[in-house]
Amino acid sequence: MSDKPLILVTNDDGIHAKGLRELVEVIQFFGDVVVISSEVSMSGKSNAITVDQPLRTTPVEEIHGVPTFKCNGTPVDSVKLSFNNLFDRSPDYVVSGINHGANSSISIIYSGTMGAAIEGSLHGVPSIGFSLDDFSANADFSKAKIIVAKVFQSVQENGLPPFTCLNVNIPKGKPKGIKVCRQAHGKWEEEFEKRTDPHGRDYHWLSGYFKNFEEESTETDIYALENNFVSVVPVTIDMTCYKTLEQVKNWKF
Amino acid sequence: MSDKPLILVTNDDGIHAKGLRELVEVIQFFGDVVVISSEVSMSGKSNAITVDQPLRTTPVEEIHGVPTFKCNGTPVDSVKLSFNNLFDRSPDYVVSGINHGANSSISIIYSGTMGAAIEGSLHGVPSIGFSLDDFSANADFSKAKIIVAKVFQSVQENGLPPFTCLNVNIPKGKPKGIKVCRQAHGKWEEEFEKRTDPHGRDYHWLSGYFKNFEEESTETDIYALENNFVSVVPVTIDMTCYKTLEQVKNWKF
Repeated sequence: MSDKPLILVTNDDGIHAKGLRELVEVIQFFGDVVVISSEVSMSGKSNAITVDQPLRTTPVEEIHGVPTFKCNGTPVDSVKLSFNNLFDRSPDYVVSGINHGANSSISIIYSGTMGAAIEGSLHGVPSIGFSLDDFSANADFSKAKIIVAKVFQSVQENGLPPFTCLNVNIPKGKPKGIKVCRQAHGKWEEEFEKRTDPHGRDYHWLSGYFKNFEEESTETDIYALENNFVSVVPVTIDMTCYKTLEQVKNWKF
Repeated sequence: MSDKPLILVTNDDGIHAKGLRELVEVIQFFGDVVVISSEVSMSGKSNAITVDQPLRTTPVEEIHGVPTFKCNGTPVDSVKLSFNNLFDRSPDYVVSGINHGANSSISIIYSGTMGAAIEGSLHGVPSIGFSLDDFSANADFSKAKIIVAKVFQSVQENGLPPFTCLNVNIPKGKPKGIKVCRQAHGKWEEEFEKRTDPHGRDYHWLSGYFKNFEEESTETDIYALENNFVSVVPVTIDMTCYKTLEQVKNWKF
């Protein structure tokens, strides 16, 4: 068996996405790599798991010479399978992406890319989600790959505390540097577009724009990205709001 | 227009679930109620959103006399639609459940019930996810409904800080009381069951058991439930791990 670490690569844009291939190309310098992803886009799938249908994995054409599997489940399903006897050993790292489009601020809670990274951290291994602030299918990942190498090497050198992962967002163009920061407080303002189908029935398309609730702060991932820095946000799985906890303890139920 | 608050009721077990009907029955004492949910189960859908297909909502038979709609999207989609001109006014509260099965500890990140409550909090209104620690379709919700009334009344009286919601888990049987507590540190240990279909192809069923990493602690939602208390965990949308943030700031990238 190889003495190199096993690095699981996955994403939420699907097995054919350019960002996945670019991630494989750079990450294979750091260990043995296996790829598992979906044949279709899993954008917006968050931490979703598949409980109502069976999961299948199928070997497909190798990406940059590494073993590659497609899975009919979500990004989290793919990670769970990879830690359960799918391969001859369990992954030592999980890297997810490179996503086509940023996953900064509140987008983390909807992102399948980050769902996979969070799931990796739950299995006790250092995990990173990488996203490029460019939605185009043919985005230029050349500079993003250098960032991937720098961040991954730092994670290999320093480790990550168990049950935390990193949310790394990379600006378009040449980054000015890397900023370790916190998740910006903001939300998506939805604008559902209502249309009528040929049979006279209404339907709605989800769209919208991001609203930053703290435009003045220089400590957030949004600020970093807007100023052409890479944002690195350490992510926890503990969603308890401790400040509110102390208040609610005083309630009379 | 009514001067009562508008309360949105949704869930992830679907529009036909007993727990949804029981929640409507009790919550209508606190305001005007509208129901929107899926026709099929959305268990495990987390904070997933639908970006690749249009959403449709259709009025269906009223539940306990309140306007009821089915939606082809996820629980989060249903909440987003309800804040975007689906009704003649926006909800003042979002309540989700009553889920068939607990959503304590790490289950919060996979739960569609909690996805809906978190989304409600993002829209700036007090939001609560209710779950009963009983998976059976015909579970007895009679005591759970009293808890729903007590917790909802407390939220009406005290309010909740913006962008926080409550994760309320109710034990089977008669609860001894209500404990305000934090999310237990634990994870699901998966045990994929491998089978072979009639065509000779392998498939995997996701199953497993919950592992509590801090069995000694009395401050967690798992402890509360195991000791027949209702657990109330305030939930944040900020997933930044501030402790790790300070460490990673010292890294040399």
